[in-house]
Amino acid sequence: MSVKLIEFLKEKEKDIVEYIKQSDVQKYFKPAHMYDAVTSYVYRNAKRLRPSVLIMACGCLGGEERIAIPAAAGVELFHTWTLVHDDIIDNDSLRRGEPTVHRLMQGMGKTDLKLNDNMAKDYGRDVAILAGDIQHAWSVTFFIDSTIKMGVDPLVSLEIIRYMESYVIGNLICGETVDVQLGMSSTIDSLNFSEEDIINMLWLKTGVLYGFSGMAGAMIGKGTADINDVQVNGIKEFTSNCGTAFQLQDDILGILGNEKTLGKPIGSDIREGKKTTIVYQALKNANEEEKTFLLSVLGNKNASESDVQKVVYLFNHLDGINHTKSLAEGYIKKALPYLDVIEDSMYKDLLLSWADFMINRDF
Amino acid sequence: MSVKLIEFLKEKEKDIVEYIKQSDVQKYFKPAHMYDAVTSYVYRNAKRLRPSVLIMACGCLGGEERIAIPAAAGVELFHTWTLVHDDIIDNDSLRRGEPTVHRLMQGMGKTDLKLNDNMAKDYGRDVAILAGDIQHAWSVTFFIDSTIKMGVDPLVSLEIIRYMESYVIGNLICGETVDVQLGMSSTIDSLNFSEEDIINMLWLKTGVLYGFSGMAGAMIGKGTADINDVQVNGIKEFTSNCGTAFQLQDDILGILGNEKTLGKPIGSDIREGKKTTIVYQALKNANEEEKTFLLSVLGNKNASESDVQKVVYLFNHLDGINHTKSLAEGYIKKALPYLDVIEDSMYKDLLLSWADFMINRDF
Repeated sequence: MSVKLIEFLKEKEKDIVEYIKQSDVQKYFKPAHMYDAVTSYVYRNAKRLRPSVLIMACGCLGGEERIAIPAAAGVELFHTWTLVHDDIIDNDSLRRGEPTVHRLMQGMGKTDLKLNDNMAKDYGRDVAILAGDIQHAWSVTFFIDSTIKMGVDPLVSLEIIRYMESYVIGNLICGETVDVQLGMSSTIDSLNFSEEDIINMLWLKTGVLYGFSGMAGAMIGKGTADINDVQVNGIKEFTSNCGTAFQLQDDILGILGNEKTLGKPIGSDIREGKKTTIVYQALKNANEEEKTFLLSVLGNKNASESDVQKVVYLFNHLDGINHTKSLAEGYIKKALPYLDVIEDSMYKDLLLSWADFMINRDF
Repeated sequence: MSVKLIEFLKEKEKDIVEYIKQSDVQKYFKPAHMYDAVTSYVYRNAKRLRPSVLIMACGCLGGEERIAIPAAAGVELFHTWTLVHDDIIDNDSLRRGEPTVHRLMQGMGKTDLKLNDNMAKDYGRDVAILAGDIQHAWSVTFFIDSTIKMGVDPLVSLEIIRYMESYVIGNLICGETVDVQLGMSSTIDSLNFSEEDIINMLWLKTGVLYGFSGMAGAMIGKGTADINDVQVNGIKEFTSNCGTAFQLQDDILGILGNEKTLGKPIGSDIREGKKTTIVYQALKNANEEEKTFLLSVLGNKNASESDVQKVVYLFNHLDGINHTKSLAEGYIKKALPYLDVIEDSMYKDLLLSWADFMINRDF
């Protein structure tokens, strides 16, 4: 990762978290458990890639970084509520290396309210649902701050919010719903999903929000309410394609990464039977014996450590990892020409370094 | 209920539902189950009191009804997502006389996806969480339509949305969270909650959103972005106090109403142990024997029909019902002077009839 990008991300992380911390909306997060539930993920260490991309996009079109900060905080909170609700749905225990919101609240229900195990579980889920709802609303207030605090044209803010609350959320939740449906289909079988299905889901779950981050920053930077503006669209397509590449790389790290940088146990994607292009390609190239073995381990919550290691070996051996790597590279290649409509600048260089980081990162 | 109010509500119900039906945002509700989940409550019969109040408030301050219709649709959808998430939390089966969203989706998981019982239950919950999220977002798009389609000053729309997404949602969810916490405390006891606690919760869960409906309509009608405008505030306080009275009356109907108009089984408030001012007053006036009996039935899911009937008798006999009736009347009396800053008009008359209906309705 380029030194400039590292420095930029560090500085923006600070700016964004500082901006979120001073939000007066927090006084409405009551009672005490709700305040903890709403703010917990927000103040944990995170890369803040989406909001940083929003700020780069604003800079690319001549906007001051400063005026993009509230919207950057908005996209971070929007991402956060989707994580909180997804974690309930996926019944995950860890997020960013610490307990998920529903687990955290389950614990507080036990210690503070003296609830029994079953009730504490319900309590954790209930508070987490409502905490995500508040984060969603909080996100919208940040986009409104763009106008009220930074003087962004109100029509620009309204168009950005309308796009987020219709196109973006619709596609994102479509992706999550299809993911839930696929996850509940009883067996993994190379026949019941296509590679196209998987990649479409990655785009829905990740590419769309990256595309929106670029688009919103570009609109604020240029001061236009036109979501079809050729430069706005160029940046949107660029960041959307890079976002899809990001998620493909994420699937690779889910197999090859380590627990500390992942923030979740190694092998969990394998034991959960997550349907990725890695799995798809490996099953396609497997002989009968390998296929039988893979299908016996994928989605098996009690799979042994050595079986998981053998699956990792087969994912490499059967071209699953390399194939996914080249798919990700393909999306970056597809993204690059969209920046032709953008003049050279420090911010364009940052976007290009960021694109490179999307497929070369190991965390 | 006055004939004029009946006619107004009928007409507005039609206008609001028609406006919702033509929303182009619906094309993003995918896959098919998600479309069904998001739209099901919306198209069921309902009184649409909150959006109607918003339109009356707009009229009171000289605005055309037409320009308030998108915001009216917005407040209806905002109310709707809170119902969908509350129904998951309360594990309710019926809403407006038909299955709740999570039950509906549980059924579809079984029939369409051939899921087993446990998985279908998870599926129902998952889709319902996400459906509420989309309704929340859809609600915001309607408030934005006020500007884009009806020419309302964009700063007015931004201030309305900001208030909804901070003050309103914060208080509403605080009420719901405290309700969850109270509901999980192991026993009903006249000592572990005060009448003030209960009434504050009614205000949080209902009064705040009615206050917002009046306020938003008044701001649109007057064309002001000032939430502290004396007329805006007058209407807000009026509708907020009437909203609290509405909920007190709702608790009375929960005991004395019939299943058809309630849309839920008779006695369910008693079997769930719902903490109301009726319960509070009855326990306060009960002798030891009556108190022991009440505490044995309230919150007992398997209470017999005759025990439930005996509780209803005691609620009457021990002044629970009449006391709550006069509390509700008190809130209407408190509300009325707030309308002194509003000139006489057909719309003011409608608001006054509506206030009267709040405490005299039997459905």
